Amino acid sequence: MKSIYLEKIRLQNPLIHNITNIVAANYCANGLLAIGASPIMSANVEEMEEVPALSQALVINIGTLIGKEAEAMLLAGKTANKIGIPVVLDPVGVGATSYRKQIISQLLAEVQFALIRGNAGELATIAGEDWQAKGVDAGDGNADMNSIAKKVANQYQSVVAISGEVDVVSDGVKTVNIHNGTPMFPKITASGCLLSSVCGAFLAVAEKQHYFDAVVEACTAYAVAGEILAEKLSPTDNGQFYVGLLDQLASLSVEKIEQYGRVNNV
Amino acid sequence: MKSIYLEKIRLQNPLIHNITNIVAANYCANGLLAIGASPIMSANVEEMEEVPALSQALVINIGTLIGKEAEAMLLAGKTANKIGIPVVLDPVGVGATSYRKQIISQLLAEVQFALIRGNAGELATIAGEDWQAKGVDAGDGNADMNSIAKKVANQYQSVVAISGEVDVVSDGVKTVNIHNGTPMFPKITASGCLLSSVCGAFLAVAEKQHYFDAVVEACTAYAVAGEILAEKLSPTDNGQFYVGLLDQLASLSVEKIEQYGRVNNV
Amino acid sequence: MKSIYLEKIRLQNPLIHNITNIVAANYCANGLLAIGASPIMSANVEEMEEVPALSQALVINIGTLIGKEAEAMLLAGKTANKIGIPVVLDPVGVGATSYRKQIISQLLAEVQFALIRGNAGELATIAGEDWQAKGVDAGDGNADMNSIAKKVANQYQSVVAISGEVDVVSDGVKTVNIHNGTPMFPKITASGCLLSSVCGAFLAVAEKQHYFDAVVEACTAYAVAGEILAEKLSPTDNGQFYVGLLDQLASLSVEKIEQYGRVNNV
Repeated sequence: MKSIYLEKIRLQNPLIHNITNIVAANYCANGLLAIGASPIMSANVEEMEEVPALSQALVINIGTLIGKEAEAMLLAGKTANKIGIPVVLDPVGVGATSYRKQIISQLLAEVQFALIRGNAGELATIAGEDWQAKGVDAGDGNADMNSIAKKVANQYQSVVAISGEVDVVSDGVKTVNIHNGTPMFPKITASGCLLSSVCGAFLAVAEKQHYFDAVVEACTAYAVAGEILAEKLSPTDNGQFYVGLLDQLASLSVEKIEQYGRVNNV
Repeated sequence: MKSIYLEKIRLQNPLIHNITNIVAANYCANGLLAIGASPIMSANVEEMEEVPALSQALVINIGTLIGKEAEAMLLAGKTANKIGIPVVLDPVGVGATSYRKQIISQLLAEVQFALIRGNAGELATIAGEDWQAKGVDAGDGNADMNSIAKKVANQYQSVVAISGEVDVVSDGVKTVNIHNGTPMFPKITASGCLLSSVCGAFLAVAEKQHYFDAVVEACTAYAVAGEILAEKLSPTDNGQFYVGLLDQLASLSVEKIEQYGRVNNV
Repeated sequence: MKSIYLEKIRLQNPLIHNITNIVAANYCANGLLAIGASPIMSANVEEMEEVPALSQALVINIGTLIGKEAEAMLLAGKTANKIGIPVVLDPVGVGATSYRKQIISQLLAEVQFALIRGNAGELATIAGEDWQAKGVDAGDGNADMNSIAKKVANQYQSVVAISGEVDVVSDGVKTVNIHNGTPMFPKITASGCLLSSVCGAFLAVAEKQHYFDAVVEACTAYAVAGEILAEKLSPTDNGQFYVGLLDQLASLSVEKIEQYGRVNNV
């Protein structure tokens, strides 16, 4: 695959507004800095018109809703739509509770997303498929991920990315599978949250008609970074993987993405 | 000592619901993944019936109460009691403020805990002993930890674990001392919070009549992981200890626990 | 330069009350432990009279305001003033939104600060200078940092520290430039937040008439720690820098500060 957007991020250093959770906030900020973007992490209702207006993308992550985050997310999402910056939705654990389902329904109804990114269980839930999620982890089920990605993409007029052993990205018309990554990713917390933020950075530097390509590159770049890192570690080096991923993102190059990337159309 | 529950965690991969603080949330999630469990970190009042119902244990940690966490903790605790999953209480800094004392009193009055785990200052406060705590750190005092553990265990019909240079675990009848660990533990933040979460994972895979054994194994396993790690580091390698502990938890084995564990009855 | 306060921190182990954000809370706690202080991270309105009263310094950081933090900050700040412990203000991203500007105005009007510490953009905003901040990052502008530091110091009768390639510290009369540090600092999140907390630890062990010296030593010590670390790393080792800084802070010595420190009066 061809890498176009990584270099643009490094040149343009886009500001990415994250409304995220208390588990992932630090890692998302560090990961965005590593990839070459700038993070701003506000979830304050009072700031949801000004912060998106300063930013080049907005990432909404429902991982831990403790205050008025849901209200902030709706307001920020609408502001971002008005301004025209891309909005990413990470529906963390949407299958776990009716509250999360309701928040996601409302967000999907009132905000136009450039990307919906989650694991198999989260996207199966959004697609209305039968799935046994496990809290915020992917869980098990038999649904076909390519069909689910396509279905959700068409329903919400958004790019959809499903992370897993094989990543699936679809815009409803084109669908690709990305055969990169490592089993280390699900062993650390916030690896999905950070990917959503990284996707935000790639979308921030892409034209609207290239959002699909930008997401494919983002997911491939991220999976390649993890894959290269895992080659050097043992399968129980969870802590080293967590920290080392930041180094890999910072040292990632067009060459590595193009050399390692294994992407095919389905 | 004999290790029984570590392997069960790795096989059953229990889901542990954590209501925890903004300092420790990330480390608890990563540490639970490392030991072989799955974390879910919700503190939202709206989710406190559904999330415990999905989980195999609940860990309540009062480290930073900023929103409606106290309300969420009570509701989640009662739900967990109804369902019959074990509940862990980590009374972080309970001696520091009257608000924390009041929250802990209420939790102890309305929720049945499988385990109360804290440092010397926190348990001395709960026992009503004279103690000079230092914020959320252990502080100094002369109380006998074995008596305090036994007293609190009897009063609340709960296992009690007091972390320190020597760990004490008591169910009110049996009391053991664990002579493992390293002075590095108090040099990193959230090491106690993570131990509480790890105890939650061990309790999740134990029968009720074996909760005491499960907590002894959890505390020993955790102390052994730190001890093995500290052998390879210098006393000022705080950052490496923080990260390396995740690797040690992930690579911990029955053999290591049984070889290193130094546990005696008192 | 001469190092006086580092050893005092290690001997006195002061308790530092931090009202900080979800991105930096963990790193500030770990960094304070590394430098030899103890952290307590409460932002609960109910605790804002008792926690400052236990503490030797208070650090207020407006990075992510999600609940009633603003109210808590005012109350804690006033309590700290009453008791006489030093208060640090970190006006994170104050230029980004009118809400942040308003909170900072109110804090500056109602609380007497021992130190206001931020990046160029934040201090330029407080000084009323024209500046193009970038979210919570420094951004660009032409203002002279020495004048800005001096101006704000005089206006608020506080020491002012501006972090950047060259750090500026002023009390309105004396002004110094610190030529230490590394370009790695802005590549990790929370490096400014942690410096504010570290300054809190240095102020906690200094007499009021030496606050300026304590801040100069804190900023120099911190910059030296980063500089020594960066010598051993590659410019893309973001993750290793983030973690290694804790090791460096823990192993920092009077000798290293005095050997590496390059501080001059302006």
